[in-house]
Amino acid sequence: MRCRRCKDKAVIYIERHNAAFCENCFLHYYYNQVDKNIKREKMFKKGEKILVVVSGGKDSMALWDVLNKNGYDVTAMYINLGIGDYSNRSQEIVENYAEERKLPLIIKNIKKEYGLEIGKISKKLKRSPCSICGTIKRYLFNKVALDGGFTTVATGHNLDDEAATLLGNTLNWQEGYLARQAPVLPSTHPKLVKKVKPLFTLTERENLSYILFNGIKFIHDECPHAVGASSILYKEVLNKLEEKSPGTKQRFLINFLEKGRKHFQDVREELDLKECKICGQVTTTEICSFCRLVEISHS
Amino acid sequence: MRCRRCKDKAVIYIERHNAAFCENCFLHYYYNQVDKNIKREKMFKKGEKILVVVSGGKDSMALWDVLNKNGYDVTAMYINLGIGDYSNRSQEIVENYAEERKLPLIIKNIKKEYGLEIGKISKKLKRSPCSICGTIKRYLFNKVALDGGFTTVATGHNLDDEAATLLGNTLNWQEGYLARQAPVLPSTHPKLVKKVKPLFTLTERENLSYILFNGIKFIHDECPHAVGASSILYKEVLNKLEEKSPGTKQRFLINFLEKGRKHFQDVREELDLKECKICGQVTTTEICSFCRLVEISHS
Ligand SMILES: [Zn+2]
Ligand SMILES: [Zn+2]
Ligand SMILES: [Zn+2]
Ligand SMILES: [Zn+2]
Repeated sequence: MRCRRCKDKAVIYIERHNAAFCENCFLHYYYNQVDKNIKREKMFKKGEKILVVVSGGKDSMALWDVLNKNGYDVTAMYINLGIGDYSNRSQEIVENYAEERKLPLIIKNIKKEYGLEIGKISKKLKRSPCSICGTIKRYLFNKVALDGGFTTVATGHNLDDEAATLLGNTLNWQEGYLARQAPVLPSTHPKLVKKVKPLFTLTERENLSYILFNGIKFIHDECPHAVGASSILYKEVLNKLEEKSPGTKQRFLINFLEKGRKHFQDVREELDLKECKICGQVTTTEICSFCRLVEISHS
Repeated sequence: MRCRRCKDKAVIYIERHNAAFCENCFLHYYYNQVDKNIKREKMFKKGEKILVVVSGGKDSMALWDVLNKNGYDVTAMYINLGIGDYSNRSQEIVENYAEERKLPLIIKNIKKEYGLEIGKISKKLKRSPCSICGTIKRYLFNKVALDGGFTTVATGHNLDDEAATLLGNTLNWQEGYLARQAPVLPSTHPKLVKKVKPLFTLTERENLSYILFNGIKFIHDECPHAVGASSILYKEVLNKLEEKSPGTKQRFLINFLEKGRKHFQDVREELDLKECKICGQVTTTEICSFCRLVEISHS
């Protein structure tokens, strides 16, 4: 197969676009896709201070790298969630990457800074570790961004992630989630920072290729807590549909954003936002869910 | 395993309801489900003249049988679509069933009565046989019902069919189809008959069990044209989700009907209905799509 752009020997074939690329032209395609997403969805502009959340995995490492190369003003944040060896190795990968390139990096450690241990809280509350992890991450994304004067938080969610989330929301017809799922979540309060997903049209495989072609180190394992999560089943099912009909995933997501999503906007309730009595962050209750986790883990 | 109802030895386990039944109690469950659907969805009442469409397959044979046993005033209609041996064998099954029980049956033959041949038209128009078959069936359902004074047409669509159709409509976010998908399609014009699907909460497997427990003969093969249809892929995918999380299919469909569907009602366009210049049936064009098929197959 030949590269669509330069006719040289191709190394990757992207079936849903019916396009093959050599390494160089793939990277050109990749940069373009990300930049197009950022501009078309009005995610942020050159000069704005962006906080990019990195886990050490292929998607967020690709995002961090491409935003730097495309000339955006990016600071990375890594959250050490205290998940044993997985957390230690991923922190090291992120630190090495930043050090080699002299890039700004903020490290948060939930055990050292807040005394939070996901495993313990999960058992105490009989809630899944993933839901506790989600609460903690959402809180820190916003807090670190606000404290540091960032306008926007960027995460590495890819097409596979977004399509799987959409399938889950659709199988249960969760109207509120369907109303809110989007590549850009605008700020709805002066103390809530905008959230964006610049890789939402790129697949796991494309992010992996980007990482490999650039020789960037990353942590191969998924978080050990994610094993058996329904998102993995949804990805399998979507991969099966994609195999039989290439483009299904992207059509599902893009058609939702263009045609489906608007129908659910009437269920977006006006939330009564106030400030947490302990930490001052925005919440809908007296004490925010993060501060409640901190209280519980010390009781 | 023991029967949930009579504690006798169970012969079937229905995982999504976490219920096992003996043969008798399963039939009790089945009759109840169908009757509950008919009443809750206001499909039709005792004494109304119902036209039930039968293909000789397990679903429509089960519907025909259960409506008769539940005391509804039912006439069956079989359409011979001229699909070789498949059509001949299925007609025989339907005729034998009616004869043995002295039940009213209307037979339509599209080749003999209208000169229509699906294979030929499909090639001529480069349209899939299934889409042509759909046009012909929809037309005849309505025409035969109107001519015979039936208030309602009932079809054997089951939970698997409806969930697969919903998945297809959702993967492409087809707003118009999502607005219309329902177990009851009310009449929107004096010359359009109401359509209902009394088995929409029962699975293929439950219909098959009903047929086997009652010793009813049916045609095992699917229509040969259906091979490779996307509905089969959607059913596979839904079965995989169901296996990991029993009840997924029914939740997907019922939550859609209760929570999802209403959001799409704003896209139901008011159609400009007129009467076909050739046959007088309701259509949106000068000549209805059935009469155009007849013209094409004679040209
Ligand atoms: Zn090239
Ligand atoms: Zn707080
Ligand atoms: Zn029993
Ligand atoms: Zn006509």
